[in-house]
Amino acid sequence: MTLIEPEKNKRSYVTAITLAVLLLVVLLTCVPYLVSIALAEGPAQVDRADASPIFGVTIPPGYKQWELIAPAEEAAPLDELRAVVGNQTAIDAYQAGKLPFPDGTILVKRAWKRKQSPEFASATIPGAATTVQVMVKDSRKYAATGGWGFGRFVGGKPVDEAQHRTCWGCHEARARSRDYVFTRPAP
Amino acid sequence: MTLIEPEKNKRSYVTAITLAVLLLVVLLTCVPYLVSIALAEGPAQVDRADASPIFGVTIPPGYKQWELIAPAEEAAPLDELRAVVGNQTAIDAYQAGKLPFPDGTILVKRAWKRKQSPEFASATIPGAATTVQVMVKDSRKYAATGGWGFGRFVGGKPVDEAQHRTCWGCHEARARSRDYVFTRPAP
Repeated sequence: MTLIEPEKNKRSYVTAITLAVLLLVVLLTCVPYLVSIALAEGPAQVDRADASPIFGVTIPPGYKQWELIAPAEEAAPLDELRAVVGNQTAIDAYQAGKLPFPDGTILVKRAWKRKQSPEFASATIPGAATTVQVMVKDSRKYAATGGWGFGRFVGGKPVDEAQHRTCWGCHEARARSRDYVFTRPAP
Repeated sequence: MTLIEPEKNKRSYVTAITLAVLLLVVLLTCVPYLVSIALAEGPAQVDRADASPIFGVTIPPGYKQWELIAPAEEAAPLDELRAVVGNQTAIDAYQAGKLPFPDGTILVKRAWKRKQSPEFASATIPGAATTVQVMVKDSRKYAATGGWGFGRFVGGKPVDEAQHRTCWGCHEARARSRDYVFTRPAP
């Protein structure tokens, strides 16, 4: 027995070291992922008052970092500069050129009053922000409106139900052939 | 000696396992970083013909994915819609509101002919792409021009030296107080 016991201790020692180092492997391997997860923008707490009437659409977090699809200009009386951006699902769909847009697509149109550049007579630049308009594709949830939910926001808050009732009719009438989306990608 | 030899073997065994597992730790820990590095956009091979005269500025890869700083409009005769985007260094500098912009800042102005929307009388959308204009901050390399290198591209190729000679004078005269950058971030 006295000959076997040290042998057992050695084995336990080897096993313990191996397990400890394996645990270290797992932990260290996970660190970069855990850091990525911690740094990623989580789903923001959404107040119901921040969701659009009828559709329940909210302003998506981080949309200002999204890729530009196209700028635009709207004549008087709105007199605005605009820029439509999209999430990665939207960008991928535009690049593939396939319609309809897949569920999960989100488009955001930012808008500003047109303002004379103080440096150039010929240049017009963004003045005050006016509306943020959002389209969210969910073919089940929004089956009655071509798969799209709409949200129109002023100062971060949705406008009234009456205004939201006008979205679908116009998109349906004028952009049916492009899955009800007006914006084409800028070349 | 016959009693000591197996003891030595055990130790070598433990050492070997420990080293092997440590190597595994290091390798697995590095994998995510190596993958990130492999997936990151490397510096593209740049033909000298693609670099602007005087400054040697090229169109930065991936700029279409960069964050929007502001759209703009340019009246006739250019008659353009525009969008200025920036790399992360530029975006961080704008957000911090600190001037001058740090070395490594890159701004890209995309431009398109204004085009009547086929769906809306009041809407103007991007037509054909016209110029891509690039500003690169390198306070040593471009010390003679406020730290900025300029590139103006049509169809992916730089315009001539005469046109590039006009960049600095205008930026110097009209935008000195903002580190020679015209574009303000859209609110």
